[in-house]
Amino acid sequence: MRVADLTTPALLVDVDALEANLSDMATALPGSRMRPHVKAHKTTALAARQAAAGHTGFTCATVREVEGMAAAGLGQDLLLANEVLDTRRLGTLVSEGARVTVAIDSEPTLRAAVDGGVAEVLVDVNVGLPRCGIAPERAGWLADRARAAGLTVRGVMGYEGHLMMLPDVAERARLTQECMARLLAAHADVGGDVVSGGGSGTWAMNTWVTELQAGSYALMDTAYTAAGLPFRQALTLLATVVSATDATGDMPAFAVADVGLKSLGMDHGNPTVVDGQVWFCSDEHTTFGPEGPIAVGDRVTVLPAHVDPTVALHERMHLVRGTGPDAEVLDVWAVDLRGW
Amino acid sequence: MRVADLTTPALLVDVDALEANLSDMATALPGSRMRPHVKAHKTTALAARQAAAGHTGFTCATVREVEGMAAAGLGQDLLLANEVLDTRRLGTLVSEGARVTVAIDSEPTLRAAVDGGVAEVLVDVNVGLPRCGIAPERAGWLADRARAAGLTVRGVMGYEGHLMMLPDVAERARLTQECMARLLAAHADVGGDVVSGGGSGTWAMNTWVTELQAGSYALMDTAYTAAGLPFRQALTLLATVVSATDATGDMPAFAVADVGLKSLGMDHGNPTVVDGQVWFCSDEHTTFGPEGPIAVGDRVTVLPAHVDPTVALHERMHLVRGTGPDAEVLDVWAVDLRGW
Repeated sequence: MRVADLTTPALLVDVDALEANLSDMATALPGSRMRPHVKAHKTTALAARQAAAGHTGFTCATVREVEGMAAAGLGQDLLLANEVLDTRRLGTLVSEGARVTVAIDSEPTLRAAVDGGVAEVLVDVNVGLPRCGIAPERAGWLADRARAAGLTVRGVMGYEGHLMMLPDVAERARLTQECMARLLAAHADVGGDVVSGGGSGTWAMNTWVTELQAGSYALMDTAYTAAGLPFRQALTLLATVVSATDATGDMPAFAVADVGLKSLGMDHGNPTVVDGQVWFCSDEHTTFGPEGPIAVGDRVTVLPAHVDPTVALHERMHLVRGTGPDAEVLDVWAVDLRGW
Repeated sequence: MRVADLTTPALLVDVDALEANLSDMATALPGSRMRPHVKAHKTTALAARQAAAGHTGFTCATVREVEGMAAAGLGQDLLLANEVLDTRRLGTLVSEGARVTVAIDSEPTLRAAVDGGVAEVLVDVNVGLPRCGIAPERAGWLADRARAAGLTVRGVMGYEGHLMMLPDVAERARLTQECMARLLAAHADVGGDVVSGGGSGTWAMNTWVTELQAGSYALMDTAYTAAGLPFRQALTLLATVVSATDATGDMPAFAVADVGLKSLGMDHGNPTVVDGQVWFCSDEHTTFGPEGPIAVGDRVTVLPAHVDPTVALHERMHLVRGTGPDAEVLDVWAVDLRGW
């Protein structure tokens, strides 16, 4: 199959860009120094490539992601880096042989781990992002409570998510150090081997964690590219021009591609159309001003602004070598970790 | 099953609100005067309720939606109100007995209808929204070309989508009249019985179309509620509070619900949390300031800002009678029209 044969919208993964991203990260943070976050691609076939690159532990955001990874034979060391009140499905996985660790930041989440049959936890610490995480000075208390309840506390996690896209890289590094100081202070009280945190935006500067929870680096998006990351844009969305209108009066020429709010995560704003200027997106359309001649039926390449919610809208992604309509489709990967 | 038994995030549909919306619309625009747009709910079980309310024709935005509606026995009169370059799957449905009409606005889309085996078309007219649609003065020319190619031209369609949420209702009505004047001028040249257009935002003022293509009225969202529509918010997203942090220093108290960018369409901005003020959304989280006491494990109700891309992120919706944790879940509807 060639790219020209695909029905659009179609997610394409440039295999050379993907492999370069995985290789570069595995060189910088080999093996267990990296715990790839699957929420950014929701695809066990892609996770298998990350495992082949040497990373045996994975980070998940949902129970479904943990289940899917275990079912795909990638359940050697799965961290649900999120708080959940019902861990029974996780407990089932543990009883079936998967290693599952869950984040806790409160008594109810601690109790949920016990009740559901999850034996290992990390204490999630608020390092500055107002989201989940216990205050650093209370982390030791929660760890004591967890151990008293029979849980194994493997260590701490803390995510400096508010820093990932700070334009000033020096400031990003300075604030990352501040956040990680909070995490290390908590770790001193909590104990355990694991200090988990970080992401694609701080991969090169977060030297304090024992394992980095990066996800976006594998496929990338325009927001992370703008933040100066060295990884290549491996994920693109193939679209077809379904309508084109010539310039009239004071209205310049515009064209319409068959991708929109149903195929693109929009929280980071509009996508980028290669050789075009995006005007706006509708449910199934992106209206754009083309930078050159364009005709109905032409294929255009669209770069998502935010990879995570984009992949969550797709059933599959297509592994491709090369560019253009004659590029070969090497494989079709199910985006099999969607839902909850 | 009760609402308390559901895993979150979970889409809930208030059956009384839904039935009131469907009934009110069917009273105002009975039978073929309404051609409900399934893109807003992507759920054949909900479409069956619209059919039970008397509407036998439906509007679709994707080939997959047309296929799913036909497979569900709702293929009496399906309009794909969109341009497509490959209509072969539609032609297959026609050969199997479904009635499928497709929009065309160019020679290539006309040719695609012929090549794929679709016999009936509407000429899509640009009435002011820069998206698909041929210029009104060229619509008659395209209709002649279509008939010469053996197609049946049923009439015209034109969508005044840029007016749907104009806050000034009188201005919305005035501009709708202008747009529809363009559509009627095109119709005079094109012929046929059908003048299709309009949407939930102009349902009460677009008195020129023979059939209204409204979708959002059935489930509603906060954007359409803000635009003054009389329909009730039938769709809500049930969430669980997974973390809560007390006020400290100059940081007010906040809580985290387990819904975010993966469960909410974000192009209209943040969702609304009942009894809370939303701070920001992350992939699987919404951080909000609660307006009263809140605890980990509490359930909260979230109102999506945009219904269409929200439902596209979910596998199912739950039909519910009543409110609160003891409300009965009457049925579980698959969101079975997703994808392309």
